[in-house]
Amino acid sequence: MSDFDFENIIISIPDYPEPGVVFKDVTPLFQDPAAFKALVDTIADHFADQGITKVVGAEARGFLIGSPVAYRLGAGFVPARKPGKLPREVYTESYSLEYGTDALQIHKDALDGSDKVLIVDDLIATGGTAVAAAHLAEKSGAEIAGFSFILELTFLNPRKTIAEDFGDQEIFTLVPVQ
Amino acid sequence: MSDFDFENIIISIPDYPEPGVVFKDVTPLFQDPAAFKALVDTIADHFADQGITKVVGAEARGFLIGSPVAYRLGAGFVPARKPGKLPREVYTESYSLEYGTDALQIHKDALDGSDKVLIVDDLIATGGTAVAAAHLAEKSGAEIAGFSFILELTFLNPRKTIAEDFGDQEIFTLVPVQ
Repeated sequence: MSDFDFENIIISIPDYPEPGVVFKDVTPLFQDPAAFKALVDTIADHFADQGITKVVGAEARGFLIGSPVAYRLGAGFVPARKPGKLPREVYTESYSLEYGTDALQIHKDALDGSDKVLIVDDLIATGGTAVAAAHLAEKSGAEIAGFSFILELTFLNPRKTIAEDFGDQEIFTLVPVQ
Repeated sequence: MSDFDFENIIISIPDYPEPGVVFKDVTPLFQDPAAFKALVDTIADHFADQGITKVVGAEARGFLIGSPVAYRLGAGFVPARKPGKLPREVYTESYSLEYGTDALQIHKDALDGSDKVLIVDDLIATGGTAVAAAHLAEKSGAEIAGFSFILELTFLNPRKTIAEDFGDQEIFTLVPVQ
């Protein structure tokens, strides 16, 4: 685990995007070269030697952190995109939002049975997006090797949501938010 | 320059998203670990020793390539996002599309006068997005150090568009498309 104080670099914005919500802005972690390097290295070091072949990250902030983690692991990066953004044959997985549903897609040829997949995102809240991304990997025949997030909203109990569908998976987060 | 055959890994999709258009799908470059490493290293090696402090990439595919290039350069990454996605004070730059206009934003504190900025995207077509991203960096007082793209649609003459606003800047592309 890095000694870097990631929590202090994240900026909290009260009442954004709506009253009563505290938005956690992770962009300062990316714009500071030392913080960015520590962020990517800490996650990649944690999953090194586990044979990860692909990192899956969800549009759009999952690209920010997932892509350099994949590079650092010597893995490939697979973008999980909103419907209609990928031009070839896709798998689709829907998930629930606070109001309504959304969906993610990956190309059918992005992963196969030889892949060990790490799911990466900037934030885990209820866990819906991460679980959808993992189901897409599973539909492709790949093995899920773990999950990693910068921020974890522990009060929303996302680990329970992941455990319900994926059992006792490794979940590595840098900043738990109570 | 890398000997890697990036062009052969990119998939061309005729008549997508509309008849007469050939869509270039770069996602296979990211999912193949060897191609992904060569892609990031080739761009980063080209701009090494130029003192780049920040990479700016536009939502969403610019994140895929810009973020690992920033990591590899030891720089920070600044996401240029669609309006309404960044929670704090922003600079905004509008640009023309084939039909209508769009805009990009960066946080006002993301860059300053001490920064040397590389603009990175997956594709340069007319050059509107890249020029908008560079204007955002300029508004922040930063110096533009160059531009890099995986694909360049040379028949749309994007180098002329960049030269009109930014003069004789370095533009490094991996795959020119005639």
